[in-house]
Amino acid sequence: MNFSAIRRVVGWILLFEAIFFLVPLITAVIYWEEEFFVFLFCIALCGSLGALFLSKKLTNNAIYAKEGIVITALCWIVLSLFGALPLYLSGTGVYGSYVDALFEIVSGFTTTGATIVPTGAQIAALPKSILMWRSFSHWIGGMGVLVFMIAFLPLSGARNMHIMKAESPGPTVGKLVPKVRTTAKILYVIYTGMTAIQIIMLLCGGMSFFESVNTAFATAGTGGFSVKADGLAGYSSYLQIVVTVFMLLFSINFNSYYMLGKRRWKEVLTAEVKVFLLVVFATIAAVTLNVYLTGTIPSFGRALKHSAFSVSSVISTTGFATENFALWPMFSQILLLLIMFIGACAGSTGGGIKVSRVVVLGKSASNEIGKMLHPKRVKHVTMDGHVIDSDVVRSIFAYFVVYIAVFILSLLIISFDLNNLNYAGVENTKFLTGFSSVAATLNNIGPGLGAVGPAGSFADYSWWSKLVFIFDMLAGRLEVFPMLLLFAPSTWRKG
Amino acid sequence: MNFSAIRRVVGWILLFEAIFFLVPLITAVIYWEEEFFVFLFCIALCGSLGALFLSKKLTNNAIYAKEGIVITALCWIVLSLFGALPLYLSGTGVYGSYVDALFEIVSGFTTTGATIVPTGAQIAALPKSILMWRSFSHWIGGMGVLVFMIAFLPLSGARNMHIMKAESPGPTVGKLVPKVRTTAKILYVIYTGMTAIQIIMLLCGGMSFFESVNTAFATAGTGGFSVKADGLAGYSSYLQIVVTVFMLLFSINFNSYYMLGKRRWKEVLTAEVKVFLLVVFATIAAVTLNVYLTGTIPSFGRALKHSAFSVSSVISTTGFATENFALWPMFSQILLLLIMFIGACAGSTGGGIKVSRVVVLGKSASNEIGKMLHPKRVKHVTMDGHVIDSDVVRSIFAYFVVYIAVFILSLLIISFDLNNLNYAGVENTKFLTGFSSVAATLNNIGPGLGAVGPAGSFADYSWWSKLVFIFDMLAGRLEVFPMLLLFAPSTWRKG
Repeated sequence: MNFSAIRRVVGWILLFEAIFFLVPLITAVIYWEEEFFVFLFCIALCGSLGALFLSKKLTNNAIYAKEGIVITALCWIVLSLFGALPLYLSGTGVYGSYVDALFEIVSGFTTTGATIVPTGAQIAALPKSILMWRSFSHWIGGMGVLVFMIAFLPLSGARNMHIMKAESPGPTVGKLVPKVRTTAKILYVIYTGMTAIQIIMLLCGGMSFFESVNTAFATAGTGGFSVKADGLAGYSSYLQIVVTVFMLLFSINFNSYYMLGKRRWKEVLTAEVKVFLLVVFATIAAVTLNVYLTGTIPSFGRALKHSAFSVSSVISTTGFATENFALWPMFSQILLLLIMFIGACAGSTGGGIKVSRVVVLGKSASNEIGKMLHPKRVKHVTMDGHVIDSDVVRSIFAYFVVYIAVFILSLLIISFDLNNLNYAGVENTKFLTGFSSVAATLNNIGPGLGAVGPAGSFADYSWWSKLVFIFDMLAGRLEVFPMLLLFAPSTWRKG
Repeated sequence: MNFSAIRRVVGWILLFEAIFFLVPLITAVIYWEEEFFVFLFCIALCGSLGALFLSKKLTNNAIYAKEGIVITALCWIVLSLFGALPLYLSGTGVYGSYVDALFEIVSGFTTTGATIVPTGAQIAALPKSILMWRSFSHWIGGMGVLVFMIAFLPLSGARNMHIMKAESPGPTVGKLVPKVRTTAKILYVIYTGMTAIQIIMLLCGGMSFFESVNTAFATAGTGGFSVKADGLAGYSSYLQIVVTVFMLLFSINFNSYYMLGKRRWKEVLTAEVKVFLLVVFATIAAVTLNVYLTGTIPSFGRALKHSAFSVSSVISTTGFATENFALWPMFSQILLLLIMFIGACAGSTGGGIKVSRVVVLGKSASNEIGKMLHPKRVKHVTMDGHVIDSDVVRSIFAYFVVYIAVFILSLLIISFDLNNLNYAGVENTKFLTGFSSVAATLNNIGPGLGAVGPAGSFADYSWWSKLVFIFDMLAGRLEVFPMLLLFAPSTWRKG
């Protein structure tokens, strides 16, 4: 293990975090909030620690897959540990313990959007600078802080590739251009541009500047923190539709936008994007009919609007809410639960298992069935005309198995809390609450169903369950392996 | 597709079913029940139809993997369609429709043990011959009707192998001796012998002969139908412990018993058996502590007894109950739900995913993780010192994916019923009810949790949901692929 290189990257991350803190700091200045001093302190702390880490000379430049994975996991943990400080120190009263503050900021960076603040009114009452830090953490985490670092630091290409592989969502990482650094830059340009467009479109709908920026940050990262007591329910239909469209746009592979710019139409509508859109529209249709025909939402137009919003919010793993879908019929709830797992496209800011993985799993399973009928036929799994390497297929299968194992283990640990949560006002569904709590954190969605539905929060869970959810959110964002390998003894063994 | 050979095997199955009907027929004679005429009619019907099918000459003897799969699925469907007749015709009043009767007998043959009879009192009031037919269907289905046929009919070896592969549970089929027919015979000798020992041990505990035979049939097949209103709750501790032990014995690979007879000790305690026993004892310990410490069962001795019984009942996929575990704390319920999926050993009469599959999934996933750290290392998945063929590993992965797909699809279809079931007296857990309904049928357990717990039934589901469960029970018993391939157009295409 190359500790010298790890220390160096962690140092850079601390410096970057000090710079990130400038955004809420400026907000605190504008709104004349005492949190100004909290952020100033955090900037000083991260800045000096980062400088200290970087002061030591780099003795060894070699970074292999192992180091790339460890660096990624460590950076995210360091980012979160220091990112939680402003929440903990702010004196808002809602973050009772450091674990609560850590839960909230990990939920931010991993673009989960689950909150431990018990009520919407308490969220709306938070200082503006704290709200901005929560939303901005979505934006940083969405495209990835290390991708950001790669774009701005002159590091070696091989190192970059290993790190980018570990941080980017999806089974393979698509380099847009031969140079990793240029790829990272292009991604951030697209990301920033789309965020800016959304801000403008929200402003056009009469949203205030502060709310527009926050909402756009949370949409772009497919995060889901909101700044109002009732989430997005109080906004006009126009604003809700704008957010619906952008949630979907940010869950499509960013390569598609690059190819759109290059006018390579065939590469815009990849197999993954097609399947994604198909799933989105089919689910919206099914949920609309279900909530309309059962009389849950008696107007067809409203049923369609809220279904489209909720489905987009869940499959993009954003987690915004205009309606409390935890009270919808079971068919709709189970459908929403299902698309929580599928998630967004690879190479987007969304979470979940990712559409391309689901497609590869389905295709190779159907290949195997075909082999039972015709044992001698050899058929490869293809996507967009390319054969998927059998190594990639195997690693997707392994991902799926490990993902389910993490899910089950988490559910077992948090299940001790399920008999003691507060189920007042929600349907008394302990299992659904537990199951969807894990699903919503591991897939980086945010709200689940039952007691952790859009009207609920994770506040009532015990501290050890919150630690499990923190692990799950990080595991979900980094796609399980980095977090597991960080704690595997063999990672740290020599050789 | 070799239709001539398929017709022939189906003909034999009908003849065998006519012979099977003799068991309840004799019961009807002993207890002087009018169901005698129902069974007589069914014997005549199956006998003459079977003879008709067999009267046509066999024009083509070639059976390939495809035919083996189709024959197996078809035989099970034919067996069930005719096996449901006595229930439907018996005039007991509890099987309101043919679908209800079909559900019940498929639940019997697949050794599920889920019932559509609403209350225990109604089960206890059923004619003795009908009760015997239900229990006997477990015994036939447990080891497999086609394995039975292979043991008694002089068919070609290659054909036998394809059929045995499709009907026997587990990823690979272990031939004890070079000849498939002899293997089938040995399996049935062990099976019959163990059943006889259990009957004797139950008789020693003071159980009546009728109840002993029924209970032993249901245990041997890991079925779970019982003949008393309160299941096995009313029996003495001795009887409950005997059943606990035999449920576990019947969920161990039968190869182990053969090797035990040969004194090949190393092959008795295979890796699968070791993992199975480890999971069983760990789960019993966890559940015992959970129900004891939460005060659900305040006596430690009783907590241990009921936990051991419930865990053995669920992991062996039998489904007997001495306690309503649907009222236990969530941790215990989720743990029981988890072992529902793991299930028994391959080559036993139990259902579920099977321990060996879970072990292979875990081992290959951990191999893949190792590859991330050391990309150049090649490592094979081994079990008991043998390398598992990569084809087998891939087919296990495919099985897992298809299994989950069937699970999700079933859950979505039956979810329309979940808002209308009767949740009186159970915890209002719609999602848990739906989730465990599918889990309990697809894994051939029987009772689930929530409204389909040990004190509930599947009676309230609509007819289309019952059809889904019938499909799931058959898919579970035949390990998914045969039932899927039966409905795949490409199976029936030429070439």
